[in-house]
Amino acid sequence: MPPRPPSASIPATDASAPPRPGDSYVQSFARGLEVIRSFSADAPRQTLSEVALRTGLTRAGARRILLTLQSLGYVESDGRLFALTPRILDLGFAYLSSMPMWNSAEPLMEDLAATVKESCSAAVLEGIDIVYVLRVPTHKIMRINLGVGSRLPAWCTSMGRLLLGALPDDDILARLAGADLVSHTQRTLTDPEAILSAIRQARRQGWCLVDQELEEGLISVAAPVTGRGGRMVAALNISGQANRTSARVMRDTMLEPLRETAAAISARLTSRA
Amino acid sequence: MPPRPPSASIPATDASAPPRPGDSYVQSFARGLEVIRSFSADAPRQTLSEVALRTGLTRAGARRILLTLQSLGYVESDGRLFALTPRILDLGFAYLSSMPMWNSAEPLMEDLAATVKESCSAAVLEGIDIVYVLRVPTHKIMRINLGVGSRLPAWCTSMGRLLLGALPDDDILARLAGADLVSHTQRTLTDPEAILSAIRQARRQGWCLVDQELEEGLISVAAPVTGRGGRMVAALNISGQANRTSARVMRDTMLEPLRETAAAISARLTSRA
Repeated sequence: MPPRPPSASIPATDASAPPRPGDSYVQSFARGLEVIRSFSADAPRQTLSEVALRTGLTRAGARRILLTLQSLGYVESDGRLFALTPRILDLGFAYLSSMPMWNSAEPLMEDLAATVKESCSAAVLEGIDIVYVLRVPTHKIMRINLGVGSRLPAWCTSMGRLLLGALPDDDILARLAGADLVSHTQRTLTDPEAILSAIRQARRQGWCLVDQELEEGLISVAAPVTGRGGRMVAALNISGQANRTSARVMRDTMLEPLRETAAAISARLTSRA
Repeated sequence: MPPRPPSASIPATDASAPPRPGDSYVQSFARGLEVIRSFSADAPRQTLSEVALRTGLTRAGARRILLTLQSLGYVESDGRLFALTPRILDLGFAYLSSMPMWNSAEPLMEDLAATVKESCSAAVLEGIDIVYVLRVPTHKIMRINLGVGSRLPAWCTSMGRLLLGALPDDDILARLAGADLVSHTQRTLTDPEAILSAIRQARRQGWCLVDQELEEGLISVAAPVTGRGGRMVAALNISGQANRTSARVMRDTMLEPLRETAAAISARLTSRA
């Protein structure tokens, strides 16, 4: 993934020096988080040596961080194998519960999913990925498993193209330049200019439909959720299977209910603010 | 929450000293995680001073950690207010995807929820809380919002009592002693001995039903998911509303499908191992 754009600088109102990338505290904290991220479906339980190998740390460094995480209750061990504990979820939950849409959006999304009889999800942009923050699945529609926290490439998904459209063109092109633009299906756009053109279309029309560019048979349409000042804070989508819902049917029958739900969520966000 | 029981000690096979609670690295890492946890629905965006107040850090210390998190992409700022970014979800996702049941359980739970027409969830034990790790909601059944990562008290929930039953009695009593045993409804058991007795019953019968002890009108039944060696790794439950599903109806019509689903998930876990 390409590096995220630099955030706004903070005025130095405090006596302490700001951390720099080479700063030992920044580095050690970053390494601790990398150790957490080294656990996955492929590596649910790891030995000290495996963690060191996956993170590029020395064995001594990996051990120090694992024992720290263990003493804080984020990692458990039988003496040889280390595994994450559910306490880790508190960190992600801090983010989800801090999203203003978290509580108000779900019942509206459940209504929408029941109306159109397809899955409804919400996602935000992170670099060149979208990250799922809410999901109301219908019965076994998608073959890919998309829980909250899952990532998909933004450049070939309906929510991603809509969210990218909120950025300036040069920022979009910079992110595309750092992305791995591979063909997922025969229909996937992989030329940066063609993708930018599709993103601009989404920006102009205020919604985005992607027809089987991420996965054969998967089709989805997205609409924006906006907060104060009309800023796009998330995208909402409906996804279904092409063999029973064509792009035309999705646009003609599902786009309007989707936009109404996205507008209702946006209205709640603005009235709360 | 009471402190978690000490984990198995690790043999000192490495030259570096193990971290101790007073260790500066452990402390600074713990503070970084505390800063992440200080964001919530009540405090989605915080100033430096607010973070310092919520975490008990000095302004200089809070600033150093916030700028560290910002330089790592976990926090964003407009120069005055700080907020978490969706990158935080990667940490929780590392835990969820490292759970062996994550991929195999969801379709089975969707089948179950469709059969019994009630919500189905999975949770694990963390201290005296249960933490939700998977959830298949039905349409607007629960008034309380329970996403993945949500916590509920273990001692007055069906999944919690079942999970506590896997521990020795003295461990259960120690956890109850540290818990806030408040009456959520008129039916809530609050006497530690009475709760222990209900937990023992759940242990004996291999399932647990809780009738409106957490919330008026909310009723749920839980069954165990077991891994290698028969160890309970999670609990699965069905929850519904008492005004349309009595405790008797739930036990007579939903317990068996629930136990079958829990057994099917357990079988998949064991065959993978």
